[in-house]
Amino acid sequence: MNTLNTIVLTEGSQPPKKPPTEELSQIWKSLIKFGTKLKLERKCYLFRAGEHNKHVYISLSGYLMLTKNKTLLDIVEPGQSLGAALLNSGNSIQTYPVSAMSIDQSEVLQLSAEVAFDLMNSNPLVNEYFIRQFKDRMSYLQICRSIESLPVTNRVAFFLLQKKSLLKNTTITRKMIAQAVNTTQETVIRTLANFEKQKIIEYAGRKIILIDSSHLEKLCL
Amino acid sequence: MNTLNTIVLTEGSQPPKKPPTEELSQIWKSLIKFGTKLKLERKCYLFRAGEHNKHVYISLSGYLMLTKNKTLLDIVEPGQSLGAALLNSGNSIQTYPVSAMSIDQSEVLQLSAEVAFDLMNSNPLVNEYFIRQFKDRMSYLQICRSIESLPVTNRVAFFLLQKKSLLKNTTITRKMIAQAVNTTQETVIRTLANFEKQKIIEYAGRKIILIDSSHLEKLCL
Repeated sequence: MNTLNTIVLTEGSQPPKKPPTEELSQIWKSLIKFGTKLKLERKCYLFRAGEHNKHVYISLSGYLMLTKNKTLLDIVEPGQSLGAALLNSGNSIQTYPVSAMSIDQSEVLQLSAEVAFDLMNSNPLVNEYFIRQFKDRMSYLQICRSIESLPVTNRVAFFLLQKKSLLKNTTITRKMIAQAVNTTQETVIRTLANFEKQKIIEYAGRKIILIDSSHLEKLCL
Repeated sequence: MNTLNTIVLTEGSQPPKKPPTEELSQIWKSLIKFGTKLKLERKCYLFRAGEHNKHVYISLSGYLMLTKNKTLLDIVEPGQSLGAALLNSGNSIQTYPVSAMSIDQSEVLQLSAEVAFDLMNSNPLVNEYFIRQFKDRMSYLQICRSIESLPVTNRVAFFLLQKKSLLKNTTITRKMIAQAVNTTQETVIRTLANFEKQKIIEYAGRKIILIDSSHLEKLCL
């Protein structure tokens, strides 16, 4: 299946002059010089695991899920990169190790992996940006692995705390939480109901609001 | 606790002229110019999670475990880096996110994180090496997370296949496998006994030998 069927691409669309985050301000000009803006509808694949491609992306707006098999590996926020595994792949054909799908309507900056890698080697700030991306994602994955053996309540608490800012800006479904902490949707529903009863969280429509973060933090020690 | 108590440091020891792997041959001279060789006895901490430090390491010989809490995150082989999370940390005080402990007697090249980061920015091949290190470790972590929900037999099969070359060169204990695939030692013992009965593996002393890799591969699909 081709991703081009699933993304809504505004061809040749100019990327915004303003970077999505302050962190990118010093390198934004260099990045958008070679980049194109893509628009994605809700629940569209930007790429799928195993696909051949030569692009690296930076999220401009909206949130995207990184998944592998049925596991939600991470949620990408504006300013973060996607597909950086293709950087530095030389001329060998490389495939994405994970899939990326938009949670809501999203925009991304698309860069050729080759161009992005040249920029890394010629501009220390671009290099620093991508290295920070690798480090942050690796660190999150390491923490996720290290809490695998904790009870599900603690894993849900960890996820809610780690993704605090996301809860405010997008709808994290129970299914997503289940896929992130490796449990069933039913268990997540039960866990969240308990948190609600204990006044640790509350709901505003479908959005989860953290009321007592310190309680969640204690569950993560 | 200070790591200096646990590592046996041969002060000012010259790193070897020959790199541990072919991959490092082109950048070895630049790396050893600024590096020192450290020797570690069996089961010694090179660093512990949360420690302040400013060093990045490359394994020269022997195998080291990366752990966090009680999870075995990965096993580092000669030629691979450790502590690269401290690269690019500027002047801010950074701590190691994980611990590193030698499995058997080991040697590592110690580099100041600052010097290593300067080398990355001035030498594209050094940059490429460290990016590859990040990518490889991230990719392994992503796969580990994505198989979390598989039965323990499949997770053990995955671990044995991923760490095939290690099995030949060092002793992987049942405890290590248990910590890597998030199960009990008893379950690992039972799983390996089943594999032995089915002639998928056999033992040479304490070493596990893979006889029928294709069977293990089927368990990883």
